[in-house]
Amino acid sequence: MATPSQRQTIRIIDVIRKKRDGGELSPAEIEAVISGYTRGDFPDYQMSAWLMAALIRGMSKAELATLTEAMLHSGQVLDFSELAGPKVDKHSTGGVGDKTSLVLAPLVASGGVYVPMISGRGLGHTGGTLDKLEAIPGFNVNFTLAEFRRTLARVGCAMIGQTAEIAPADKEIYALRDVTGTVESPFLICASIMSKKLAEGVDALVLDVKTGSGAFMKKMEDSEFLASLMVETGKRMGKKMVALITDMDQPLGNYVGNALEIVECLDILEGRGAADLRELCIEEAAWMFCVAGRSGTVQEGRQLSEKLIAQGSAMQKFREMVRAQGGDERVVDDRARLPQAKSTVAVPAVQGGLVAAIDCERLGVASLVLGGGREKKEDVIDPAVGLVVHKKVGDGVAAGEALCTVYYNSGARLEEAQAAITQAYTIAPEPPRERRPLLHKVIQ
Amino acid sequence: MATPSQRQTIRIIDVIRKKRDGGELSPAEIEAVISGYTRGDFPDYQMSAWLMAALIRGMSKAELATLTEAMLHSGQVLDFSELAGPKVDKHSTGGVGDKTSLVLAPLVASGGVYVPMISGRGLGHTGGTLDKLEAIPGFNVNFTLAEFRRTLARVGCAMIGQTAEIAPADKEIYALRDVTGTVESPFLICASIMSKKLAEGVDALVLDVKTGSGAFMKKMEDSEFLASLMVETGKRMGKKMVALITDMDQPLGNYVGNALEIVECLDILEGRGAADLRELCIEEAAWMFCVAGRSGTVQEGRQLSEKLIAQGSAMQKFREMVRAQGGDERVVDDRARLPQAKSTVAVPAVQGGLVAAIDCERLGVASLVLGGGREKKEDVIDPAVGLVVHKKVGDGVAAGEALCTVYYNSGARLEEAQAAITQAYTIAPEPPRERRPLLHKVIQ
Repeated sequence: MATPSQRQTIRIIDVIRKKRDGGELSPAEIEAVISGYTRGDFPDYQMSAWLMAALIRGMSKAELATLTEAMLHSGQVLDFSELAGPKVDKHSTGGVGDKTSLVLAPLVASGGVYVPMISGRGLGHTGGTLDKLEAIPGFNVNFTLAEFRRTLARVGCAMIGQTAEIAPADKEIYALRDVTGTVESPFLICASIMSKKLAEGVDALVLDVKTGSGAFMKKMEDSEFLASLMVETGKRMGKKMVALITDMDQPLGNYVGNALEIVECLDILEGRGAADLRELCIEEAAWMFCVAGRSGTVQEGRQLSEKLIAQGSAMQKFREMVRAQGGDERVVDDRARLPQAKSTVAVPAVQGGLVAAIDCERLGVASLVLGGGREKKEDVIDPAVGLVVHKKVGDGVAAGEALCTVYYNSGARLEEAQAAITQAYTIAPEPPRERRPLLHKVIQ
Repeated sequence: MATPSQRQTIRIIDVIRKKRDGGELSPAEIEAVISGYTRGDFPDYQMSAWLMAALIRGMSKAELATLTEAMLHSGQVLDFSELAGPKVDKHSTGGVGDKTSLVLAPLVASGGVYVPMISGRGLGHTGGTLDKLEAIPGFNVNFTLAEFRRTLARVGCAMIGQTAEIAPADKEIYALRDVTGTVESPFLICASIMSKKLAEGVDALVLDVKTGSGAFMKKMEDSEFLASLMVETGKRMGKKMVALITDMDQPLGNYVGNALEIVECLDILEGRGAADLRELCIEEAAWMFCVAGRSGTVQEGRQLSEKLIAQGSAMQKFREMVRAQGGDERVVDDRARLPQAKSTVAVPAVQGGLVAAIDCERLGVASLVLGGGREKKEDVIDPAVGLVVHKKVGDGVAAGEALCTVYYNSGARLEEAQAAITQAYTIAPEPPRERRPLLHKVIQ
């Protein structure tokens, strides 16, 4: 029987004040916030006050678990149990040149693991998987859930955007956070990511939490904290979880920009390409095979991944997926079918020496201002623009030698992009003090 | 010449994030927040996020000064320099049974000091000066500024509500704070009060900051902090300032409710009435005479106040003000002309002993639920209802003896009011541990 206090209506104003004063909210209070906001019972200005209080005061593990579940259950939770075999996804917190998802989905699917992937768009200085996929002529990321299910069953992988049915509470809350200074909370980030990823009907999830100058979390301790929150939240919901904390102190691979990154993915799937990108793809695929139970050890998973690339199975799966999602698979053999920028220009080093550091966010901004990203949600992406990075940390460079080549269509903000690139590089007589590893830490 | 950074537009999102992270905002940033919000350039949901960040992170003295000035200059600042003689006001942070303003305005005006008073309405458990004035049939608190000025010049005092011309930024921000859990910040309270009071064209201001169970600030340290913020802010703007921290751990006087409080004011103006209320009125009038330069010492001010009441000058001024503002001055001689409740009932003590404590907020809530106050802004006040308090802290009481008498029109929430009164009283065998003074502290 409900006690009188349980029967009382929960007033949003009381919940705001409780969180404001550092109190721990009950499950009923958190559910009231999420369901009330999603139903439109209380307005944006109350939600934003609550979000700010939650950001500053933080949350307990119990609060975070309830928040994530309430957001997850605001929409449909997919169930792919009719598909025999493990279902695994991976999620990256985003960075510059991070195109691993586009390699991983076909690579892991070619190893017999279903990969149902619901991805996001780029915002700010980071790129987004959906924008990169759309650089392939015809590729449709706006599948219905029924089309998603059919493609997944037939191909083994499918890559789409968040539909209206998946965690609608997150969709609305994220839009509000974006304009109210309430994005940068590990608790709110965790609930946002996990409510979407737990709706995908996967058994296991590999998280790639970026750290460094090109990541949203620039400090290792913040990346670690977010990683541990997400791993715990996923485990509590019965998922196998692993988080890799990986380096984003310089771009991943050498290509930044939507069509350019497709080119680099094709290189990797052909067994070529930049060593760091290749290494990270192999590592993440290996962990996906492990949590799927497909490999007994990470080492076995790496070997399997190498083999699938060498045999051409991964590339074959990529072709199948592109075709199934309406894209022009001929880009694999003829890269000129991808959008091409009209002009290129090299950005030279002003002095010689060794690349001591790269402010990676600035390189992301350079691509952004050329039209490769969005400053506002409604901005339209130019898929052809971006940069090719010639010099990475530790590389020697002569004065006048090209640091990057800029690919552009409009000269409107070219100077701004060039200046951002020049400013991003620190060139010194000595090599960098520390050599950062690609994989910093594994959290399970 | 403006530097490039000064020429840049201030983005509200950056100001929200800066305050969120505990940064100190520049004057330009604070002005951008207030002017942008007042112009409607940015929406409520961004303002509420900023308010929550400001509440939790606090403000520096410089930030508070800029905020107050920006809110003050969002509207008209009155200038009564054409009136020869000092202009002084007083402001109370509000409590239960606090009707001193209604005595002070005519009392101090009868001593040759102009009192231009812009007051507020009751909200929550506290009463409001405007609601009390409106219990006098015909009394018009909705004067234009021109009518306010004319009445002040002719009578020497005038009491009105906040017009659209006075600190409109405060009016909008206050409404938003009320529904977003951002009321209880000493900085935001200070800016709200002072932006209105500094617009009144006064030379000096006496603040009555309440402390105790019936006040918004229940702890002495909070009341002291708010008092010192307001005194500093007023001084910085060139005003003579004094704050009295006074007791609100039990109702002030014996009458709570709008018409009932008018009755008690008439008692005081006739030289009778409750000792505590009388003492506080004399004390505050004395300080108003001091800051006005009308008395050399507070002791002289007290003697002047006593004399003005004894001579009948204060009551005469009250009649003039009521008449000038359209009210029925005959209530002075015939209190039956005030709204009368249909029924009364005594609330008896359940046990005998001594009144050890009164949870004063609960008595305010008792009057509120009878219809004497507002739970929501749109609630309509019943001026006739309220309570007469028979037992105060330290009084002896027999079991079954009346603690209060309830004046009511509708029985709908009578039981709730009776229960609140019973629960408000702590009756014990011993007298209270400490005897709280009426005046705790003077901050200048």
